[in-house]
Amino acid sequence: MTNHYGSIEAGGTKFVLAIGDEQFNILKTNQIPTTSPEETITRTIEFFKENPVKSLAVGSFGPIDIKPESATYGYITTTPKAGWANVDLLGKLKAALDIPMVFTTDVNSSAYGEMIVTGGKSLVYFTIGTGIGGGAVQDGKFIGGFSHAEMGHQYVKRHPDDLNFAGVCPFHGDCLEGVAAGPSLEARLGIRGEEIPADSKVWDIQAFYIAQIAVNTTLALAPEKIVFGGGVMTQTHMIERVRKEFTKLMAGYVHVPYLLTDYIMTPSVANNGSATIGNFALAKELDEKNY
Amino acid sequence: MTNHYGSIEAGGTKFVLAIGDEQFNILKTNQIPTTSPEETITRTIEFFKENPVKSLAVGSFGPIDIKPESATYGYITTTPKAGWANVDLLGKLKAALDIPMVFTTDVNSSAYGEMIVTGGKSLVYFTIGTGIGGGAVQDGKFIGGFSHAEMGHQYVKRHPDDLNFAGVCPFHGDCLEGVAAGPSLEARLGIRGEEIPADSKVWDIQAFYIAQIAVNTTLALAPEKIVFGGGVMTQTHMIERVRKEFTKLMAGYVHVPYLLTDYIMTPSVANNGSATIGNFALAKELDEKNY
Repeated sequence: MTNHYGSIEAGGTKFVLAIGDEQFNILKTNQIPTTSPEETITRTIEFFKENPVKSLAVGSFGPIDIKPESATYGYITTTPKAGWANVDLLGKLKAALDIPMVFTTDVNSSAYGEMIVTGGKSLVYFTIGTGIGGGAVQDGKFIGGFSHAEMGHQYVKRHPDDLNFAGVCPFHGDCLEGVAAGPSLEARLGIRGEEIPADSKVWDIQAFYIAQIAVNTTLALAPEKIVFGGGVMTQTHMIERVRKEFTKLMAGYVHVPYLLTDYIMTPSVANNGSATIGNFALAKELDEKNY
Repeated sequence: MTNHYGSIEAGGTKFVLAIGDEQFNILKTNQIPTTSPEETITRTIEFFKENPVKSLAVGSFGPIDIKPESATYGYITTTPKAGWANVDLLGKLKAALDIPMVFTTDVNSSAYGEMIVTGGKSLVYFTIGTGIGGGAVQDGKFIGGFSHAEMGHQYVKRHPDDLNFAGVCPFHGDCLEGVAAGPSLEARLGIRGEEIPADSKVWDIQAFYIAQIAVNTTLALAPEKIVFGGGVMTQTHMIERVRKEFTKLMAGYVHVPYLLTDYIMTPSVANNGSATIGNFALAKELDEKNY
């Protein structure tokens, strides 16, 4: 009988598979490209056949169906990603691997991992990359009702120097994702974010939007921490810009009872590993609940 | 031994006191003006001395301290209301009335009441009046972390025909409260909201903002219902305008699995009674938990 836990971070470009011990050390990990559902899920199953675990958690790209009482529970539902709409991801995994499984969003897994590692009870995690997604935990439970959160598409007040930019969200134009995800940088300047100098004014504009979602999240959820991960946040100057804009935008209205450097943070887990740790923790809790 | 529950809706202009039976019928109610803390709290205590209850809940204006482990738990904290900053509301009530008490925000009480009456597990309640406040319940628990939510001050995208209006929030200028609460109507047109004709374009502008908070709340919390109460929403044409703008702004991104008339609603409890019902329910649950 194994004492290991499994993690599947099911992303739109790759699946990150891992097994971990009871202290959440990664014992083995593998990344497989997200090709067809058949191929990708078969390779995922093979990994866990070779590396058995007691229980596992899946943090998936979405939208997904997380309502256990639903007929399509465990499905990736209406994704535009070719071939992946209406795929019974959890069902296929369960049919092949007869172990208990948790099913949630990738950003929820990341939020959970960051919460476990930093030791709190509530946390909101945003990924600012090709898209923007957010996951939230409160008192150890994920925020969500009829479905999971889709925090990245919230509307924001436009920056006065950015009013002529229409935004790139295919649904909303200038929602947060439309004005602050990676592709918005490229759409404004014609070069990729990595190539934009650190002193470009566009970073202040982007920090203004990211800080706004931090303000709105503070007002709506009052979490103990807000963590910003994803490609855009690997620009090391960004997080301090976000903190500065946060202070300006909050304008003293709500006093956050933490140091801002402990409240608005980049991930504490290195190398995009937050979701894996979160999945291990979710798998372990599920296993313990079953006894 | 009484089988009655108590409700205190502690507002900035009046305290609404009530006792109810186990089916939450109001047996007796009284409204007292919010004068000095001493006078107001003394009259509140007198009411419950004359009308004993098993347990009661307080839904208070704020900001308030709702953290049981805090030294100032039960206080109204930094309110600008003269005389009411740092008032130990709960402590004074508990010292005089030796019964179990719940302490939360007025909008949380309203959210809870609406949830109980409409029979769900999650609900967000906004009051759109002199100010804007919001309370949220998920799986029977209030949303909040280091403190309670302050949802009314979230930033919103500005309406294209309203860009020259600076907003009236003393903290943020054009946050939601600054552009969509009652005083913003008066600031724009110089006449009170009640006197503005139903065909004025300002209602569309206001519906645009209120719908945005409904979109953002749907994306962040995915509740089963969003209820809009408060003075502005007594304009009977408003709720349908908000639904219309919600559909436009959501742009098909998240499918709400309910009829919009069941999802975006005015209060189901008449005469601003949501908080009283919510308080009865909270008091009853506390009482049952104590056995």
